Amino acid sequence: MGLDNIRIVLVSPLYSGNIGSVCRAMANMGIADLALVAPRPINEDEARMMACHAVPLLNARRTFASLAEAVADCGAVMGASARAGLYRQHARSPREWAPWALELAAHTRVALVFGPEDNGLSVDDLSLCTQIIQIPTTDAYPSLNLAQAVMVCCYELFLAGGAWEPPREKSEVAPSDLRERMFTIWREMLTATGFLHDDMAEHMMLGIRRVLSRGALTVDDVHIMMGVARQTLWASRHRPGSDEAGSDDH
Amino acid sequence: MGLDNIRIVLVSPLYSGNIGSVCRAMANMGIADLALVAPRPINEDEARMMACHAVPLLNARRTFASLAEAVADCGAVMGASARAGLYRQHARSPREWAPWALELAAHTRVALVFGPEDNGLSVDDLSLCTQIIQIPTTDAYPSLNLAQAVMVCCYELFLAGGAWEPPREKSEVAPSDLRERMFTIWREMLTATGFLHDDMAEHMMLGIRRVLSRGALTVDDVHIMMGVARQTLWASRHRPGSDEAGSDDH
Repeated sequence: MGLDNIRIVLVSPLYSGNIGSVCRAMANMGIADLALVAPRPINEDEARMMACHAVPLLNARRTFASLAEAVADCGAVMGASARAGLYRQHARSPREWAPWALELAAHTRVALVFGPEDNGLSVDDLSLCTQIIQIPTTDAYPSLNLAQAVMVCCYELFLAGGAWEPPREKSEVAPSDLRERMFTIWREMLTATGFLHDDMAEHMMLGIRRVLSRGALTVDDVHIMMGVARQTLWASRHRPGSDEAGSDDH
Repeated sequence: MGLDNIRIVLVSPLYSGNIGSVCRAMANMGIADLALVAPRPINEDEARMMACHAVPLLNARRTFASLAEAVADCGAVMGASARAGLYRQHARSPREWAPWALELAAHTRVALVFGPEDNGLSVDDLSLCTQIIQIPTTDAYPSLNLAQAVMVCCYELFLAGGAWEPPREKSEVAPSDLRERMFTIWREMLTATGFLHDDMAEHMMLGIRRVLSRGALTVDDVHIMMGVARQTLWASRHRPGSDEAGSDDH
């Protein structure tokens, strides 16, 4: 699986909480290989607090003296940069890179490199990168929190991996003939309660049809609405003071 | 613009740092309307530190006593839930919802609701939601940090908005005839330096062609490589101890 070959590299991170948050984001998205380059002294408590259930990943991190060493075995080195300038025009978004990175990760290690919180990657570090990633943002505030930048990239890689199956409704979308049976009993019910009357009945049924057709109803949805109508019909025929057949013509 | 009509609602957030991080994520993605429901006492310093340049957004937040009040004016109320269970099958991913939510946000306010860090949204809160959002994750660790969950949703909405233009290379992709001129001068240069020789020349040029065709070279790229070859040709003809024409047959 390609995600096993993805390495997240943090160059000189400043805040231990961010390192922990990065671990959590990685764990959420199935990425486990974390490398730190020349980090400031780490407050382990702070890092662990933000890592939450990803503490094992935090503990398994490796530390390198230089970016060159941290990515020495990586076939692709993708650097995240928010800066305009020299590299801007060569940058691609995480969504553009993700499928390509993952395809490559089937055969080689791929590093995603993030710079320090205050300055981002240096020109020397960027020159080690084979690709530049820029996360889409507003022009007004293009600088993401470090862990959130990692999350966006890991999220795109995870989705590109295709392992995730979106939840699906257990109940199928109701076909037209079932919906028509629902409208038939609703019409009967709404006539029994006196909601539909005279020559407005057709027009009002169109309104009801529109309300119940805004979204694609499932078979379960239709059964619920049929149950409501049947019970209301029953109640309208058994209302206190009415006889068994009710006062209407049903 | 639809993003102006998106409201982020945090129900009883526990950590002030997370509130600040949410503000930063929102500002990165062009969303400004933040509502808090019954928050714990807020440590303003901690919140401001994580909000960074999004402090104005933090200061503009509004606080409500209940979720019902916070979303009273919203045409759609989308609740984020990581939980399996009752609502799981009705959930959609942020990527599935984003275009729909943004289309709706052209005409009405749309709330994105996130529960407390420890428990997520209660069943009562979920029942106020018209749609359920589930962020794709591994099964091993489906619970995201609050601010990172907000980031993923805001990022999807921002991209769905289509305002972001990916950076493009200033230089066009080089057409075949220009690339062929590059290979011609490279062949000349590699013959001059003695790299190509005899009957291996054709085969070795295929290797050079493959290396220089791994990615789509731009016009600028090709000009750089042609410059390298021209300069090398010149140098090979002016090397110390050789006459003007060099020792080869060019």
